[in-house]
Amino acid sequence: MSNLQGLHLIAGIAAAESSDTFSAKNPKTGETLEPVFHESTLGEIDRAMNAAADAFDEFRHTTPEQRAEFLEAIADETLALGDEFLERTEAETGHPRPRCEAERGRSMHQARLFAELCREGSWVDARIDTAKPDQQPMPAPDVRSVMLPVGPVVVFGASNFPIAISVLGSDTVSAFAAGCPVVVKAHPAHPGTCELAARAIFSAIEKCGLPKGIFSLVQGKSNEVGAALVSHPQTAAAAFTGSLGGGRALFDIANARPKPIPFYAEMGSVNPIFVLPGALEERAGEIGNGFVTSLTTGVGQFCTNPGLVFGLQSEKLDSFKKSAAAATSEWQPATMLHAGIHHAFETGVGNLKKMPELNLVAESADAPDPAKAEAACYLFEADAAGFRAHPELLDEVFGPVSTVVGCESPTDFEAFARQLDGSLTASIHGTEADLKEHAGLISILEEKIGRLIFNGYPVGLEVNHSIHHGGPYPATCHSHFTSIGTRCINRFVRPVCYQNWPDSALPDPLKNDNPLGIWRIIDGERTQAGSE
Amino acid sequence: MSNLQGLHLIAGIAAAESSDTFSAKNPKTGETLEPVFHESTLGEIDRAMNAAADAFDEFRHTTPEQRAEFLEAIADETLALGDEFLERTEAETGHPRPRCEAERGRSMHQARLFAELCREGSWVDARIDTAKPDQQPMPAPDVRSVMLPVGPVVVFGASNFPIAISVLGSDTVSAFAAGCPVVVKAHPAHPGTCELAARAIFSAIEKCGLPKGIFSLVQGKSNEVGAALVSHPQTAAAAFTGSLGGGRALFDIANARPKPIPFYAEMGSVNPIFVLPGALEERAGEIGNGFVTSLTTGVGQFCTNPGLVFGLQSEKLDSFKKSAAAATSEWQPATMLHAGIHHAFETGVGNLKKMPELNLVAESADAPDPAKAEAACYLFEADAAGFRAHPELLDEVFGPVSTVVGCESPTDFEAFARQLDGSLTASIHGTEADLKEHAGLISILEEKIGRLIFNGYPVGLEVNHSIHHGGPYPATCHSHFTSIGTRCINRFVRPVCYQNWPDSALPDPLKNDNPLGIWRIIDGERTQAGSE
Repeated sequence: MSNLQGLHLIAGIAAAESSDTFSAKNPKTGETLEPVFHESTLGEIDRAMNAAADAFDEFRHTTPEQRAEFLEAIADETLALGDEFLERTEAETGHPRPRCEAERGRSMHQARLFAELCREGSWVDARIDTAKPDQQPMPAPDVRSVMLPVGPVVVFGASNFPIAISVLGSDTVSAFAAGCPVVVKAHPAHPGTCELAARAIFSAIEKCGLPKGIFSLVQGKSNEVGAALVSHPQTAAAAFTGSLGGGRALFDIANARPKPIPFYAEMGSVNPIFVLPGALEERAGEIGNGFVTSLTTGVGQFCTNPGLVFGLQSEKLDSFKKSAAAATSEWQPATMLHAGIHHAFETGVGNLKKMPELNLVAESADAPDPAKAEAACYLFEADAAGFRAHPELLDEVFGPVSTVVGCESPTDFEAFARQLDGSLTASIHGTEADLKEHAGLISILEEKIGRLIFNGYPVGLEVNHSIHHGGPYPATCHSHFTSIGTRCINRFVRPVCYQNWPDSALPDPLKNDNPLGIWRIIDGERTQAGSE
Repeated sequence: MSNLQGLHLIAGIAAAESSDTFSAKNPKTGETLEPVFHESTLGEIDRAMNAAADAFDEFRHTTPEQRAEFLEAIADETLALGDEFLERTEAETGHPRPRCEAERGRSMHQARLFAELCREGSWVDARIDTAKPDQQPMPAPDVRSVMLPVGPVVVFGASNFPIAISVLGSDTVSAFAAGCPVVVKAHPAHPGTCELAARAIFSAIEKCGLPKGIFSLVQGKSNEVGAALVSHPQTAAAAFTGSLGGGRALFDIANARPKPIPFYAEMGSVNPIFVLPGALEERAGEIGNGFVTSLTTGVGQFCTNPGLVFGLQSEKLDSFKKSAAAATSEWQPATMLHAGIHHAFETGVGNLKKMPELNLVAESADAPDPAKAEAACYLFEADAAGFRAHPELLDEVFGPVSTVVGCESPTDFEAFARQLDGSLTASIHGTEADLKEHAGLISILEEKIGRLIFNGYPVGLEVNHSIHHGGPYPATCHSHFTSIGTRCINRFVRPVCYQNWPDSALPDPLKNDNPLGIWRIIDGERTQAGSE
C-alpha cells in the first residue's frame, strides 16, 4: 500500500488546487513514479504563510520542555514511517538503502539534539545587567535580554540529502526548537519523500497538541513557488541548501523585498585539499586512495566534495596521483540524483576536458550508462601554470571529479589559497611540523574556510555543538551562521531587551530566580545563580 | 591653535588628492568652519582598504590582552584630545558642551567595556566536541570551533552622535576587539571631529606598536565615497547608523556585489509609547511631562525618539495631553545638527499639519530661528479613525515632534501595534496589573520591538552586556544583531571549525588546557575546565 496522495499539507489540511502537475522519476530506471504532484498556487502559499503567522504567538509561548517533546515525537514518527519511507527515498534519489537509513538516523539524531538543546536551555543567551541606582552621572536601569524567535521560517531542502537536509533537516528542527513555525518547499526531485516526512511532522503536532499552523509543506517545480514564499510578507527568514544559481536568485529576492529578510543559503564550494610535504613523504599512496573514497562517496554529490588537491610537484605527488588514479579507475559508475544534476556534471567534466592545460589522469574503467544517469569518476591534473590559466577551476563541479594541482613551491600554496573563494572546508594532510612550516597557508585558509580538517577528508560531518557548516560567500550568504549543528538555531532568533520590567512579566529565562536553571550573564559574569 | 588639516588619514599617512572640497558649518551661526576637507578619491579608498587587508593577518593574531590595551589607549588618547575636540564637536553639531562631554564619556566607556570583554575572553563562543572513537556506526572526530574576525570593516558614523556613534563609536571599538581592521567614512557634517578622533586612534596604534593599516579615516560628502567603500573587494562587512534612505541604498549595494557582504544598518524608528489605563489613572500629568522631556532631549535627534503615543481616549488622556502641551509650549527652540536635518524636519512637520485628521495640540511658544536651524517642538493628536487614515504616521520624522493617538478600546492598542513597523524601542507605562491585562499587546510588541521599557522613556540607553539596540526592519537590516552593547561584536566574527587539529596548532581559545581560562562548551556542557 502507498500512503502517497500527491498533496500539499497546509496546516494539516491536504490541498492540490492547481492542475499544473509534475512527477518524480526514478533516476536509475527513468521510470515515472506515482502519484502526480501539483504546483502550489499563490492562494495555497498564502494560506500556509498566514497559518504559520497565526500559530506563531501560541507556539512561541510553549515551554522548552514542550518543544523538546515535540522534537522527540518528530524523531519517533520519522522512524514509524517504516520501510515505505526508505523505499520511496531510494526510488526518488537513487541513494542505496544503507545511505537512506543513515540519513534517517542522522535526521532523528538532529531532532533529538535540538530537544536536548531546548531542555538545557542556555542557548537563549540570557543576559542581565542589574540596576545601579548610584551610578554617575546617571543611575542605570535594570536591563535584560534574551533570544526570541523571529517568526515563520521558509525552508528549501537540498536535493542531495532527501531526509537529513530536507523536510526533516536541521533547518526545520532548529526553527521549531527556537519556536518558529515552518513552511517547507518540497524538493521537486523527491516530492514523495517530502510528503511522507511532512506526515511524520504532522503526526507529531497532533500527538503533542500543538497548533496545526506551525507546519506546512508545499510542492512545486517552478521558480515561482520559491519566489512567492520568499516574497511573502509573513515570512521572517528563509533557509536554503542547494546550488549557487538558485540560492543567489532567492537571496536577491529576499533583499529586494520592501522589508528585507535574512536568506540563509548554503550553496556548496570547492573544498580544497592540501597535501603537505611531510604527509606526502609518509603516506602518499594512502592519501591518494582516501581522497578518491571521499570524492566518490554519494556519487560525489556532497556540498563538501573535494574539487581541488594541491601538492608540491614531486615523485611523491606522482605516487599520490598513481594511487588516486587506480582508485578512480576501479570506481564503478553510479546513478546521480536526477537527470538535471547528471547533465550539469557531464557539462562540467566536458569543460575540464577542453582545457588544454589539464590532463585527464584517470577515469572509471567501466563506462557510465547515461540512461541510468550514471556518473563516472574523473581525475585531472594541472601544473601551477595551468591552474593559473584557468580561474574556472575555482568553481564547483557537483559530482565525482577533481583536479590535482602540482605546485612549484610553498609560495604557490599561499598564492593559490589566496585565489580561492570562500569554502565550507579545507583539508590539510601533513605532520605537526608541516603545520608549523606552512603557518602562512593555514592563516590564509582560516580567513576563508568554515571547517579545517587535519589528516582527514571533507565528506561526512559530525552533527554536534561545535560543527560549523558554513563559510564566506559563495559557501553561504552570511558567514556568521551555520546550517548544521546547534549553532544553526541562531538564524531564527533575535535579542529582545526588557528595561525595568517587572519580574512577574519577564520571560522565564530572565526571571530573577532563574526558574529554568540556565547559564546567564549577570553583570558580565556567567552564572546559573539567580539575580537580585 | 588648531591641529586640523582637512586630511584623510590612510594607514597613518595624511592624504588629500582631490580638488573637490567641502567644509563643515556651524549650524548655530551658519558660519563656515576651517579648514576645507577633500572628497576621497577611488585611489585613496583603494589604499585604505588594501592597507586594512594587508594588516588583517597580523592584527588578528594579537592577543586579547594586546587588543584590550589598545582599546584602553584609545580611551586615553580620546581624553588627551582635550578641549579642542569638544570645541570642534560643539561647533560642528550645535550640541551643548555638556552633551559633548557626556558623549566623550560614553565613547571612552565603550572602548573600556570592549577591553574588558577581550580580557574576559569567553565571548568567542569556543566549543569542543571530543572524539568518540567507539561511536556507532562511525567514530566521531574531535571537532572544535571558535569565532574569528571576518576582515576589514567599513564604518559609517551617525550625524547625531558625533563622538559615541562615529569614529570612536561601538562599531569601531567592537571591530577592533574582534581583531578586524577598520576604515571609517567620516560624517560630512562633522569632518573635523572625525579627523581629531582619528588622530586619537592613530596615537593609540603607535603607542601599542600595532600595524598602521588597521585604521584609516576617509572624508567625503558624496554618495560615491560610501558606495566605493561598500563595493570594495577587500571589505568584509560594513556598519552604518543613519537614515532609512541612506542605509537602504548602501544595503542594496552590499547585496548586489559579486560577493555580497553583511551590511549592518541601524536606521531609526518610530518608538511608540503605550500609556495603559492604570498608569494614566495614577500619574497622567507626570508621564505627559516626562514624555516631552524624552521627546526634546538632543532636540529630538535620537534614533529612539518617541514619535507616537497611544492611550485610551479619556479624561485622563486629556490630562496627559494637557501636561505634555504645557511642556511643549515651554520648550525653547534649539539648533538642529545641520541644515539638511532641519529642512527634513520642517518638511515632516509641514506634512503632519496638512493632515485634516490631525490636530496640533501645542508647539513651542517661542518661534524658532531658521537662520540658526532651530526646531520648535510640536505635539499633535489624532483619534483612532485619524490614525487609521494615515499610515504615514508610522514613518519616523526625525526631530521633536510626536502624535498622541486616542484609542477607543484595548482592541485598538493591539490593532495599532500590529500595524507598526519594526522599532528599536517601545515604552509601556502601566501597573503590573496593566501588563497582565494587556498581555496580548505586549506579545505583539515582543514580535517587532528591540527594547521594551517599563515606566520609562526610550531616549538614552545603558551601554552594557544586555542592551539591545536593534530590531526588525526598518529599525535595522538584520534583527539578529545590535549596534550597541557587547553583543555587537558578533557582527564582525564568524565561526571557524577545526577537525582533529593538533593541540599545538589550535588557536588559544580551543587548546586543551584552556590557557585563556575562558568559558567553553565541551560536549554540550559549559565549563572553564580543560579538555582531554
